[in-house]
Parts: sequence; C-alpha cells; structure tokens
Amino acid sequence: MIGRLNHVAIAVRDIAAASQLYRDTLGAEVSAAVPQEEHGVTTVFVTLPNTKIEFLEPLGENSPIAKFLERNPDGGIHHICYEVDDIIAARDQLKAKGARVLGSGEPKTGAHGKPVLFLHPKDFTGTLVELEQA
Amino acid sequence: MIGRLNHVAIAVRDIAAASQLYRDTLGAEVSAAVPQEEHGVTTVFVTLPNTKIEFLEPLGENSPIAKFLERNPDGGIHHICYEVDDIIAARDQLKAKGARVLGSGEPKTGAHGKPVLFLHPKDFTGTLVELEQA
Repeated sequence: MIGRLNHVAIAVRDIAAASQLYRDTLGAEVSAAVPQEEHGVTTVFVTLPNTKIEFLEPLGENSPIAKFLERNPDGGIHHICYEVDDIIAARDQLKAKGARVLGSGEPKTGAHGKPVLFLHPKDFTGTLVELEQA
Repeated sequence: MIGRLNHVAIAVRDIAAASQLYRDTLGAEVSAAVPQEEHGVTTVFVTLPNTKIEFLEPLGENSPIAKFLERNPDGGIHHICYEVDDIIAARDQLKAKGARVLGSGEPKTGAHGKPVLFLHPKDFTGTLVELEQA
C-alpha cells in the first residue's frame, strides 16, 4: 500500500537557522520559507536526490507543533510521510485492521495541496505517520 | 555535500511486531531480521521505492538504543542517514564549520558494511544524523 517516502518533517524553533545549516554546512538545496497560515506553520523544503526534508516552524498562536517544541526544545523529527495512490482506500484498509486515524478521519488538504491523513503514533512504532495521496 | 537519504531508522521494542505491521498493515516489502552483535542491535529493512526504513531492536546487554527506548517506550525515530561521496572530506568540512562529530571522530563500519559517522543532534536541529559513504 505505501509507496515513496514523500518527506521527513523536522520541527524547528528557527527555520532561518535550520535553512542556513542545511544550505551552508550540509550543502543541500533549500527552498524559501513559506508561511502557511491555515496550517499554523512556516515550511521550508530541503530537496535531496530521492526525497525531501521539510522544516516546520510554528506560526501563530495555536500552532500544531508548539507542544512538540516545548518537549523538544532543540527541535526534532516530527513525522514521516508516505505516499499512497488512493487515500480513501488506504484509510479504509487501515481502519479495518484496527489502526487509528487522527482527527475526523476525513482527508485534509496538506501543505503540498494534496489530500493527507495522519495515523496514531501508538499504532505505528511511536512514529507520527502522514499519508499523502501521490 | 549530502546526497540521498539512505534511510530513516526507527527504534522498536519488538521488531517482529514492527515487521508484521509494515508488511501486513502498510503493505511494504520487509526483509528478514538480522542480528548484528557488533552493533548491539537487530535490524530489519523496509524497502520503499526511493529509500529505506530501518528498524532497530536492542540486542545484548549494552545496546546503544536501550536508553532511547527507555525514554520512548512506544519506539520512535532514532536517526536519519544521509549519503556522502567522501566521508573524510565531509567530516573535515563539518568540523571546520564547528559541527561536532560523535565518538572518536573516525568513521566506523556501519550496519551496511560502509564507513559511517554520527553528528551531534544539538548541532543538527535536534536530530541524530548519520553520514554514510555511498
């Protein structure tokens, strides 16, 4: 069911510093920062030859990553995202096997403009998993 | 400097359960478990179309992931691994820019039989980063 690893998302307090680190110290290709008010985060993408790293910095009062950064003040890996061909079929298969889908269970439009869902970390090796329709 | 994302490593208490989850629930291609006594872990690889997930289960008394699993009893993402062309050149460039290399600073042979180094999480957005010579 799962396909490519679309991205690894790393939550950071200072997205400018993280961008500089990956561009200047690690020599990677780093995008401009894009505020995504509807998601409560500012995003930057690091393009690797085979996948992406996504930096997330809190934006606004109720950012969904604020608590994660309280627990992880240096930053840290927040989630991993796998691509699926059909997000509704994937969700229904996963639910039938007892996996918990977060929120309403209905896909939302993610930071890349595609339908996404998040799966419960306790059901997936302590790891927050995003599914994105490819 | 950094190239492909070689793998995302997830520490787990029960590698058989993690393997079953990824094979049966997520429909991925999952390898057999390989005990690696010299590294203090048992490993399983999940092959995705563009990269790999590596499960790590503690092996023996002094496993390097035992403390991580005490702090993260459900499991969790332990490190990410980027490929570099020349690990000595990469190390020297990183050290010149003030980044800390863990251990002796000399590459060791990793779980894939290639030279690897680990970088200090505090210097890399709270994320343990492995470099592997491609």
